[in-house]
Amino acid sequence: MSIKVADYLFTRLRQLGVDSVFGVPGDFNLRLLDFVEPSGLQWIGNCNELNGAYAADGYARIKGLSALVTTYGVGELSAINGIAGAFAEKSPVVHIVGTVPRPKQEARIFVHHTFGDGDYRHFANMATHVTVAQANLIDPRLIPDQIDWMLKQAILHSRPVYLEVPDDMPDVLVEAKNLENVIKLESGRQTESDTAALEQVMERIYQAKQPLIIIDGETRAMGITTEAEALVKLTNWPTWTTMFGRALINEQLPNVYGIYTGQFGDSQWKKYHDTADLIIILGPHYSDTNTSIFTALPNPEVSIAFSPSTIQIGDHIYRDVSNNCLSHLVNSLDASRIAKVEGPSKSIMTEEALDPSGLITQNHFWEKVNGLFQEGDLILAETGTSSYGSQTFSVPKNARLFNAVTWLSIGYMLPATLGATLAQRDRTKDDTTRAFLFIGDGSLQMSVQEISTMIREKLNVIIFVINNGGYTIERAIHGRTQKYNDVAIWRHTQATSFFGADESHAVNNNFVARSWSDLEQILENDNIRRGSGVRLVEVFMERDDVTGILLPLMKTRIANGD
Amino acid sequence: MSIKVADYLFTRLRQLGVDSVFGVPGDFNLRLLDFVEPSGLQWIGNCNELNGAYAADGYARIKGLSALVTTYGVGELSAINGIAGAFAEKSPVVHIVGTVPRPKQEARIFVHHTFGDGDYRHFANMATHVTVAQANLIDPRLIPDQIDWMLKQAILHSRPVYLEVPDDMPDVLVEAKNLENVIKLESGRQTESDTAALEQVMERIYQAKQPLIIIDGETRAMGITTEAEALVKLTNWPTWTTMFGRALINEQLPNVYGIYTGQFGDSQWKKYHDTADLIIILGPHYSDTNTSIFTALPNPEVSIAFSPSTIQIGDHIYRDVSNNCLSHLVNSLDASRIAKVEGPSKSIMTEEALDPSGLITQNHFWEKVNGLFQEGDLILAETGTSSYGSQTFSVPKNARLFNAVTWLSIGYMLPATLGATLAQRDRTKDDTTRAFLFIGDGSLQMSVQEISTMIREKLNVIIFVINNGGYTIERAIHGRTQKYNDVAIWRHTQATSFFGADESHAVNNNFVARSWSDLEQILENDNIRRGSGVRLVEVFMERDDVTGILLPLMKTRIANGD
Repeated sequence: MSIKVADYLFTRLRQLGVDSVFGVPGDFNLRLLDFVEPSGLQWIGNCNELNGAYAADGYARIKGLSALVTTYGVGELSAINGIAGAFAEKSPVVHIVGTVPRPKQEARIFVHHTFGDGDYRHFANMATHVTVAQANLIDPRLIPDQIDWMLKQAILHSRPVYLEVPDDMPDVLVEAKNLENVIKLESGRQTESDTAALEQVMERIYQAKQPLIIIDGETRAMGITTEAEALVKLTNWPTWTTMFGRALINEQLPNVYGIYTGQFGDSQWKKYHDTADLIIILGPHYSDTNTSIFTALPNPEVSIAFSPSTIQIGDHIYRDVSNNCLSHLVNSLDASRIAKVEGPSKSIMTEEALDPSGLITQNHFWEKVNGLFQEGDLILAETGTSSYGSQTFSVPKNARLFNAVTWLSIGYMLPATLGATLAQRDRTKDDTTRAFLFIGDGSLQMSVQEISTMIREKLNVIIFVINNGGYTIERAIHGRTQKYNDVAIWRHTQATSFFGADESHAVNNNFVARSWSDLEQILENDNIRRGSGVRLVEVFMERDDVTGILLPLMKTRIANGD
Repeated sequence: MSIKVADYLFTRLRQLGVDSVFGVPGDFNLRLLDFVEPSGLQWIGNCNELNGAYAADGYARIKGLSALVTTYGVGELSAINGIAGAFAEKSPVVHIVGTVPRPKQEARIFVHHTFGDGDYRHFANMATHVTVAQANLIDPRLIPDQIDWMLKQAILHSRPVYLEVPDDMPDVLVEAKNLENVIKLESGRQTESDTAALEQVMERIYQAKQPLIIIDGETRAMGITTEAEALVKLTNWPTWTTMFGRALINEQLPNVYGIYTGQFGDSQWKKYHDTADLIIILGPHYSDTNTSIFTALPNPEVSIAFSPSTIQIGDHIYRDVSNNCLSHLVNSLDASRIAKVEGPSKSIMTEEALDPSGLITQNHFWEKVNGLFQEGDLILAETGTSSYGSQTFSVPKNARLFNAVTWLSIGYMLPATLGATLAQRDRTKDDTTRAFLFIGDGSLQMSVQEISTMIREKLNVIIFVINNGGYTIERAIHGRTQKYNDVAIWRHTQATSFFGADESHAVNNNFVARSWSDLEQILENDNIRRGSGVRLVEVFMERDDVTGILLPLMKTRIANGD
């Protein structure tokens, strides 16, 4: 049986759970796009390619795989920073690029979207830096295996891959028989390495007297969030997360403490970590920003780290351990031999009486809005004060939290909200799926137009825009009073109308909060709590107002008169 | 004498005529940004880095050099498609990237904006594909020469260069003495190659009976527009331009015909070109899109082509010819020996009586708006129907026209308008400097937020948004009725208000034209003709309405029922 290249590709994506495809049309991908909707995929045209890449990244973090279609040169390069972010933070995006037809490439013709040097490999070479695998679909005899190989690597590494489809290829026929078997990763045949590692891990678990668990973000990329939660429940041990690891397991479990921020956090927690005799860390990701500037790194001497294909115990690394090693562990543990451990006190959110006419402050704002969140919600906090503010969120069961991790490309979170919300709706088939986005006015300017795609796709997104006149996170780092950290002043509450919301949403979905009483009213508003579509709440805060780890930085700036 | 690295760099830029610097602040460039305004440069913060790169490209095309500052990884990769466009179309942008401090790079520390693999060269390696030269400022002993070398190459090749400034370098001291001499390119010592070439060229000129001149776009990059105009005046020979070459010389000269579009244009013109015995082409740039799909290519047998550092006569290439070879030619020619030539008839714009209530059509729209243009205006027509429409514009003396050339990255033209208008104002010191931007609704969505920077910088820009519901140029190519070529519907006339125009501009600077009478009124409106700030005119047109070379394409689509 034969099948057209484009049908093969899109069928594979469908088999792997992709329901929506992102991108922007361009001269060299139009023939490919003809096949998207007939294959049962939904086409989500983005305003620009970077936003499309961000959206695809968000989608993949919820659904486990996503696809982005761009055009040769101009499109793919516009998207490349988004692909790099997906590479840095392990989101499996299949970047499909419609390229120049083979005859023109072979003849080295000077077509548009090129440099006129006849070299058609520039952009593919650039892509090697930000993707785990690349393929150019130019030979029908190889194409089915090439596509399968790319998809397998995307899933295995949970990172982007790069696929070139010349414009003369979409309807070339290829062999279809691979499609009979859905792509699956070799799963956990237990290896000798597994057995040896697991024995050691169990031994250490049974011995532990002051243990703890850390859920880090690569737990998602490794596909072990369910097993992670099972371990947390089975041991009942004190459990923390990182920024990256937030809400990957149910954070309402009584033994989950929230995020551990080393020297910037609770001193009792730090003491407990510093004197622990066992730290099990799942999916470690040790960037400066994900480890509170390396102060939250677990002591390697007492640590057991589960990474993709390795388990590190102290300074010994067991390699090539199977996917479901953690599952084996959970199934093998004898609960009666596990120490019952009393962790340090939890931090308690305290409601404080606030002056109703007082300015809204970073301190208290985050706990106030926390009451809006419900099971199943998506909560997304953009790099900057929003992300640090979100550290204190208590996240309901089955809700997800995206925040700043490592790539920290401002502008990411708004299109990622589009992608993640669509993915959640595709996954649950529930039209009431909703998301909360927290974003500063500076970040908003980067990718604001993607609000229109949210509106067009009838997504329910409540956007809190923190208006503090610019890049406050940079003010905390350097240039507190410098003009370069300011941004142009927009009329934020006109966004839904400008970007095409229907009349009623354009009028009723916009809010401004300048005081605590404004905020209280908005939080009780029916359109916020039960409404639909995109809602935008502009929240004014002081230019220097920060929270969390940013607070000592800003204090230093102010003390130095910077 | 010593000077700080950042002061050295910005002083050099000032010496070379850069008055404004574009970019976005980020963690690793803040210390560098401290030096921008004290050095006398104006900081133009952009909404995002891609827009910043586009703006810098536009600036450099007017002023001959520009600078863009981004941050490591996230910032520079967001900008890279704009840099690639500058590379493709020869615009000298100095891309300055604030990178991670040297100690962290050397220790391969896993900081944010990296992939955690300790490799700090990924992005510099990617930049080699889109810049002519690269330097990493890590050794104070080399830095002054490195900077000079980069700037020299940017100017010589009229293409972008890439400069890494680690965050610990801006205030390191370096030797200042280079600064005493402004960077200059070695100019035209006449070489043997020049002499030989010029002799041949003159001989051919004196023999010519049916000659013509083509002004192509690299004339700008070669810095020979003045000499080109002198040649056109001296010979009085029939002269055409390409898309890329539009308005680089005074197109009001009686012997200038406008753009030559090969088989898609006037058949008498084509006959004249096909039977010419001499074609002098200045700054050739032979991409498909700049040569009407190669149908406007001059016959090489009768051509003399002036390119950067070469003159090609027939199939012989004279290499390493000097910069001012054309100037020598103009000064050496004996006008009395040059044939007086009668070219074919010129095309005449005819005013046609239009039904005042009729829909606005591509045919006639462009001639209607043409009356607005005055000497010194900038006219920018984005890729798509706008660019093809602009082919018919009669451009006043000293006005400039930007249109689609080769890179054709939609979204470019709006930020390029920001950059070009600023450059023009910097150059003329005239606050009434104004620009006309023609852009489709699809392209607008790519980079719309940069309207706010135009507003903040108090630029005078009249934006015509062609609202035809999506990517009409793509509809002409493929997928005429496909949904993927549609875009979300916006309320365009709210843009100025949303993006922060002052109250009066936000109310009075927005217009909608659905009929010829609407358009007539708008063209007479005082705010359009003599107003200030950003004005936006939304012009509704049919989804399939195209002009020029797109017309036969669209007709084929319709005939095939595509």
